[in-house]
Amino acid sequence: MTAAIDFVEVWRGDMVECVHQGHAVVCDERGEIVAQWGDPAAIIFPRSSCKMIQALPLLESGAGADLTDEQLALACASHNGADIHTRRVNAWLGDLGLTDDDFRCGPQMPDDRAAREDIIRAYGRPCQVHNNCSGKHAGFLTLAKHLGAGPEYHEVDHPVQTACKAAFEEVTEETSPGFGIDGCSAPNFASSLHGLARSMAFFASAHGRSDIRSIAADKLARSMMSYPELVAGEGRACTDLMRAMDHKVAVKTGAEGVFTAIIPDKKLGIALKITDGATRASNAAIAAILVKLGVLDPDHPATKAHMFAPLPNRRGMDVAGLRPTSALL
Amino acid sequence: MTAAIDFVEVWRGDMVECVHQGHAVVCDERGEIVAQWGDPAAIIFPRSSCKMIQALPLLESGAGADLTDEQLALACASHNGADIHTRRVNAWLGDLGLTDDDFRCGPQMPDDRAAREDIIRAYGRPCQVHNNCSGKHAGFLTLAKHLGAGPEYHEVDHPVQTACKAAFEEVTEETSPGFGIDGCSAPNFASSLHGLARSMAFFASAHGRSDIRSIAADKLARSMMSYPELVAGEGRACTDLMRAMDHKVAVKTGAEGVFTAIIPDKKLGIALKITDGATRASNAAIAAILVKLGVLDPDHPATKAHMFAPLPNRRGMDVAGLRPTSALL
Repeated sequence: MTAAIDFVEVWRGDMVECVHQGHAVVCDERGEIVAQWGDPAAIIFPRSSCKMIQALPLLESGAGADLTDEQLALACASHNGADIHTRRVNAWLGDLGLTDDDFRCGPQMPDDRAAREDIIRAYGRPCQVHNNCSGKHAGFLTLAKHLGAGPEYHEVDHPVQTACKAAFEEVTEETSPGFGIDGCSAPNFASSLHGLARSMAFFASAHGRSDIRSIAADKLARSMMSYPELVAGEGRACTDLMRAMDHKVAVKTGAEGVFTAIIPDKKLGIALKITDGATRASNAAIAAILVKLGVLDPDHPATKAHMFAPLPNRRGMDVAGLRPTSALL
Repeated sequence: MTAAIDFVEVWRGDMVECVHQGHAVVCDERGEIVAQWGDPAAIIFPRSSCKMIQALPLLESGAGADLTDEQLALACASHNGADIHTRRVNAWLGDLGLTDDDFRCGPQMPDDRAAREDIIRAYGRPCQVHNNCSGKHAGFLTLAKHLGAGPEYHEVDHPVQTACKAAFEEVTEETSPGFGIDGCSAPNFASSLHGLARSMAFFASAHGRSDIRSIAADKLARSMMSYPELVAGEGRACTDLMRAMDHKVAVKTGAEGVFTAIIPDKKLGIALKITDGATRASNAAIAAILVKLGVLDPDHPATKAHMFAPLPNRRGMDVAGLRPTSALL
């Protein structure tokens, strides 16, 4: 097993205060590794970075035939719970004849400041629609209804989740070594980092194929790229980086330091994991790799905001910040 | 240089999702190392874990002669900005004839939920008194007034900060290799982890000496132990662990994965650093070391809450969590 590589440093004054290590893999459409850092065989939980895989059965089954690209972007989203997200997911629930109580993701206070403050000022509580995964769960509910399956769609042996597992194992080209329960109560299947990058290359090369799965994969990636603000939210790395790359690359964060990317123009897929789970470091590392691959402008403000994220003091001065190590530059 | 040691794992399902590495040192009153993990020579920023050192000049100078133990606990605190904290710090400011505008720490939204929601419901903004370091800064202002020094007390060449630097270098028994600017705009001087542990052992053994510095150090440590809720806040590791140890050990967190501890009954000092900066891991690691040293009950609910902190899903189920590695058990 290859050790993790120093990926991102935190500087303060003229010293290094912290270091984040990680593994990363870039795959081509054949699933071959074209670049790697650390251990491609590292086993990880993709967490939300594989939501586009979890949405494949929704389209392949025909359940999502009438869904808009906005809805598909939300099915792949870890959104901020802003009005733009919850309004659309609530409308989707209404289309299904369902209510917030039919979700199994659990309530979450929105990351979006305006939405959060509205709830607090109303002495209210967040609903399940505010959960960052509610779009994915709306997709699960859509598939469950189509299949005529029961309401506990999050359980690992429910037809929705067995379909997700099958899709996951097929696009990673691996037998998953196991699963954990995600923050939203859905099972999350483990894979090697290589397998996850391979699956992203499957999405990136899908536009060149005409089988049902490839058509679904291409549509999902294009929906993500078309609506970056629905995939995450203002100020978030996914949204900022997809906009900065002119909607030509799909990127997706996952909890505990995971990031994936789909580059259709190069038919390349990327997967990375920060071993300590830090999101600040996975944001910086994916930006650095995208710059290295020539698809992200190093001088774009969004690149600087995430790849060299400042850690200002409470008076707004840049007294510390992130910087990728030479391994990623 | 010795590599950092695996300190804390994040488990999910039956797999390890993340690992946090670190260094730690336990020193006796002679400054000798009695236990170590990783590299005692690692250079770190202590951040808020050294606030009791920054408070030494306040007492040694006589500036703080009339301060209560509650005020001294606040001078060493990274508090939650709860009413119990801000009410006392505002009264202290009043005693000095000063206002919130005299602070240089910058405003910070309180971590305390009730205080935060009060501000949001009033469509207000946090003040500088809400900054987690406002007690330390009230101490700085008290010393600045006593010295007849200028209002920019946070600047590195101000008499307040030169006094803090001198105290820091003397109790760590090192020449600091440099400083960074902390989140509260005050300089934070670097030291080796061994130096920081040595300084904590100085505090832990102070009750056996009668020099001015030792009397000050003992009074500060006893103030922290007497008022755990003023040093941090409800649910925070510092508060919970000091209560769990029956007010017989002083512990202090620092940003970016630092923790220190002062054990007067054993005349031992501890310092640890998580190299990636994760607070969840420094909380777990300090609890594990305190258990190992026999001063924290492994079965106390506070120990379990921090040493084996659960990472529940949004429905409250323990689907993941922290656990120290065998190195710390």
